[in-house]
Amino acid sequence: MLKDGWFYERSFHETFSMGWKVKKVLHSEQSKYQKIDVLETDAVGKLLLLDGKTMVSNLDEFVYHEVMAHIPYAVSRKCEKVLIIGGGDGGVVREFAKHESIKQIDLVEIDERVIEVSKEFFPECTSALNDKRVNILAQDGFAFIKSKKNEYDIIIIDSTDPEDFASGLFTSEFYTDVYNALTDEGIMMNQTENPFLDEWDIKSIYTNMRSSFPFVQSFTAPMSIYPGVFWTFGFSSKKYMGTNINPEKRYEMQKIERDLKWYNLDWHRGAFLISNFHKKKIGL
Amino acid sequence: MLKDGWFYERSFHETFSMGWKVKKVLHSEQSKYQKIDVLETDAVGKLLLLDGKTMVSNLDEFVYHEVMAHIPYAVSRKCEKVLIIGGGDGGVVREFAKHESIKQIDLVEIDERVIEVSKEFFPECTSALNDKRVNILAQDGFAFIKSKKNEYDIIIIDSTDPEDFASGLFTSEFYTDVYNALTDEGIMMNQTENPFLDEWDIKSIYTNMRSSFPFVQSFTAPMSIYPGVFWTFGFSSKKYMGTNINPEKRYEMQKIERDLKWYNLDWHRGAFLISNFHKKKIGL
Repeated sequence: MLKDGWFYERSFHETFSMGWKVKKVLHSEQSKYQKIDVLETDAVGKLLLLDGKTMVSNLDEFVYHEVMAHIPYAVSRKCEKVLIIGGGDGGVVREFAKHESIKQIDLVEIDERVIEVSKEFFPECTSALNDKRVNILAQDGFAFIKSKKNEYDIIIIDSTDPEDFASGLFTSEFYTDVYNALTDEGIMMNQTENPFLDEWDIKSIYTNMRSSFPFVQSFTAPMSIYPGVFWTFGFSSKKYMGTNINPEKRYEMQKIERDLKWYNLDWHRGAFLISNFHKKKIGL
Repeated sequence: MLKDGWFYERSFHETFSMGWKVKKVLHSEQSKYQKIDVLETDAVGKLLLLDGKTMVSNLDEFVYHEVMAHIPYAVSRKCEKVLIIGGGDGGVVREFAKHESIKQIDLVEIDERVIEVSKEFFPECTSALNDKRVNILAQDGFAFIKSKKNEYDIIIIDSTDPEDFASGLFTSEFYTDVYNALTDEGIMMNQTENPFLDEWDIKSIYTNMRSSFPFVQSFTAPMSIYPGVFWTFGFSSKKYMGTNINPEKRYEMQKIERDLKWYNLDWHRGAFLISNFHKKKIGL
């Protein structure tokens, strides 16, 4: 896995790579679903890999986790029940758990070993998994979502790249299932890859999202450990635009953002004001 | 320079690297000031290196060049005379030259060979260097700026990292010289590195800028070929905030942005709405 003490992740088409100097391999195992490694690095602290792909690091985990939770929460008019598909590191759960009005957080993670390894090496991410509002379900998200109708106010797709068992999470069929599992006020969030490398055809991902949701927007936040760093995220909703922050939540968000590492309401509004390049890539 | 057909650039402290698969080395020379290489890559097309550091690529040169030129132009009330220090690739000149009201563009590039190599391998960047408003001056920017008083409406510091002969371009002394070389309406733009790696102490760069300018702001745009990608830029001005777009220029900018690859007025406004992380890094 290491070359001269460095770990390198190559992009899907093997034209670009990012690498980190490794102090120590803290953990390696083959779970039922994937290889799980934890590295100690100089640049990003502890780094979680699934099948040799970077997933979570100490340096920047807060970006993804805050963005995924607080953007839809700030927009939502009603937010009592949240579903997270994937996300076994617990970071998104931790951020949602900061909102007292949320009554139930279901985490559907196919690989229980990701949760256990995260508890051991990323305790700051898993800190809310014992919250009494949290249910951990070791199931396939694709199958789970089909059984749900009009149930969740927010659904987060915290997935890996669209290959192998995660590829189903980028299809129109899946997005329609998510739409149906959402309440009338529902919002879906998902990660939609890097548009410069654009190895997964972002336009087709957004076409699939648009075929299921009336409001589909894209915003950007940096993921320092993912190939290409400049990361796009999807905001899909039944009723609201991503910049339509619930006026009744403004005070709560202003209060909470003081203790957040990335998110604030101004940044939230600005993140949706995207470049010509970004618009073109998602087919606008 | 290559390892198994790949070029790798390591971050300053050698804890992180980015690499590109190389099809061909198109050019290599040692100029009076630095090593200049041009590579043909799969991921980013042609890639210009100075002393083994990535400078310009076909994939994303428009981001840096459009941002550096159109943000200050859109804000400026008077913009007749522009100075660019560094930037021998010509990309920033090309973007300023799109504005007919600009009467003079001075490009101070210490290394004439960068200009010549760019003309050969990046003709789309150098396309405006023959514009009759453009003066190319092969001089040291640090010395040049000291001789100028109340002369330029916009000054762009298109520099490499703060080491070797570029380190002077990040000091309070230099920023004060830039301030003095600017007219009363003046704006300075500079690149201020990646805040996640933060290998150059961004806070001290901004402290230096604030010691010379009353208005100092930071915004972000992705530079896919620079270490860490998530890039910060400084906007320093004598009178105006970076989001204070000149109402008289709105129509011109709306017209021009249709043909730009990155910049648009909405993105301009959003780019200054920065995260808590970014604020903290620059000392806010």
